Amino acid sequence: MDRIRPGVAPVYTPRTPRVVAARRLQRRRERDETGLFLAEGPQAVREARAVPGCVTELFATTAGAQRYPELVDDDTSMVTDDALAALAETVQPQGLVAVCRQPHRTLEAALTRRPRLVAILADVRDPGNAGTVLRTADAAGAAAVIFAGAAVDPYNGKAVRASAGSLFHVDVVRAADAAAVVAAVREAGITVLAADPYGATDLDALADSGGLDGPTAWLFGSEAHGLPTELSTAADARVSVPIHGRAESLNLAAAAAVCLYASAKAHRGGTP
Amino acid sequence: MDRIRPGVAPVYTPRTPRVVAARRLQRRRERDETGLFLAEGPQAVREARAVPGCVTELFATTAGAQRYPELVDDDTSMVTDDALAALAETVQPQGLVAVCRQPHRTLEAALTRRPRLVAILADVRDPGNAGTVLRTADAAGAAAVIFAGAAVDPYNGKAVRASAGSLFHVDVVRAADAAAVVAAVREAGITVLAADPYGATDLDALADSGGLDGPTAWLFGSEAHGLPTELSTAADARVSVPIHGRAESLNLAAAAAVCLYASAKAHRGGTP
Repeated sequence: MDRIRPGVAPVYTPRTPRVVAARRLQRRRERDETGLFLAEGPQAVREARAVPGCVTELFATTAGAQRYPELVDDDTSMVTDDALAALAETVQPQGLVAVCRQPHRTLEAALTRRPRLVAILADVRDPGNAGTVLRTADAAGAAAVIFAGAAVDPYNGKAVRASAGSLFHVDVVRAADAAAVVAAVREAGITVLAADPYGATDLDALADSGGLDGPTAWLFGSEAHGLPTELSTAADARVSVPIHGRAESLNLAAAAAVCLYASAKAHRGGTP
Repeated sequence: MDRIRPGVAPVYTPRTPRVVAARRLQRRRERDETGLFLAEGPQAVREARAVPGCVTELFATTAGAQRYPELVDDDTSMVTDDALAALAETVQPQGLVAVCRQPHRTLEAALTRRPRLVAILADVRDPGNAGTVLRTADAAGAAAVIFAGAAVDPYNGKAVRASAGSLFHVDVVRAADAAAVVAAVREAGITVLAADPYGATDLDALADSGGLDGPTAWLFGSEAHGLPTELSTAADARVSVPIHGRAESLNLAAAAAVCLYASAKAHRGGTP
């Protein structure tokens, strides 16, 4: 009775209990309790599908199923347009919303894989920023992104969308104690660099002196408050991106892009 | 009658004609017709104040005037909290909103100053992205940012806020014909590099070969559609930021940060 073939008339409405239950995953408490979250749109669903066991249920409208036949199967739950709109947080989810298992790992598991590049988001509160840095870290070749301290939930809908699928590519770690993360990462032989507008170490000079050639974890603080002093001083160095013009600072996503790509270039021998 | 000293009881309400007129500047048509725009919060007001003749009127609540005495004077228009809330687009404008003259220049004037680093935003539609790239360009030492084609209005409130004051630091140029911009910039002896995820030229290789050492203009397209082919092929090269992980691409702001800072480093001899 639950199984409806795609192409057949939609059956689940916004009031269908399974839709109601899935919709609750828009709230953090529900996500934390169930270990599930929502991914919407064909790109996210495709990336989630590539992770074995990640998708627990896929909701599709008739139009979505027809447009993305490679993503739906006999187990897909067909829904009305209204039901999909209730599940989605964007106006244009293109007819697909998936319930997914949260794919994060423990810090220990992530470190066992000996990552050469890591991003640590300490207390980063804005989900769009967090998702963007996750996407940039993936692009720069980072193997793990650690959401530490009071950082936003990586499975927040806006963070998931901003990550553009990268949530499913890298080891995502959640850890409440940011100081313990810094200690464990350093213990694993990874240099921790605090991105800090007031840091004494210049990024370009560090790169030119070979200081980015080894395994590196970049530590980023919140856009509003930066890094707490006790955290930035626990890092191996406090590194500033040089400001050449009259801007006071860079925003978090831009600073993270510059730092992570400086590491990527150093790791690939781009800097002699 | 118009002049009220700060500290005296607020007088302008949301229905006062001057407040009503200023509020209309939240609409693009009104901004285009008057050549004015709104800047809110102490940081933006401070930056605008530093540009001679830029601020035509400053509205302040009593609390704003008391908190930022260095920004108000006898000409400041004192307003009620309601009037300030009507003028502001954010919840926390900290009691200050200024009406400013749009400080942009012509392309010719900007090129006469022989900029070594330029950003061209072609058809970039998202005001937050545009403002962020403007801020990053300023930080990287760019002298001019050109809003070309169907790009967002740089004086859109969200763009102004995302620029974090950089709107007042660099030469802002608006030009409807993006192809003409590319031609004029090249004519001025500046190499135009199209940031293009599918570009054949690798950013790191270009930097290492000295290809970023001369005056450079980076050409960025819209987040949704990238650069139109006729524009990217008019550039001297189509340059891609390398993707080392499994992300499909970088977002516009991150790609711009990596490209602009690669130029900044090359200009300062960071790359041997």
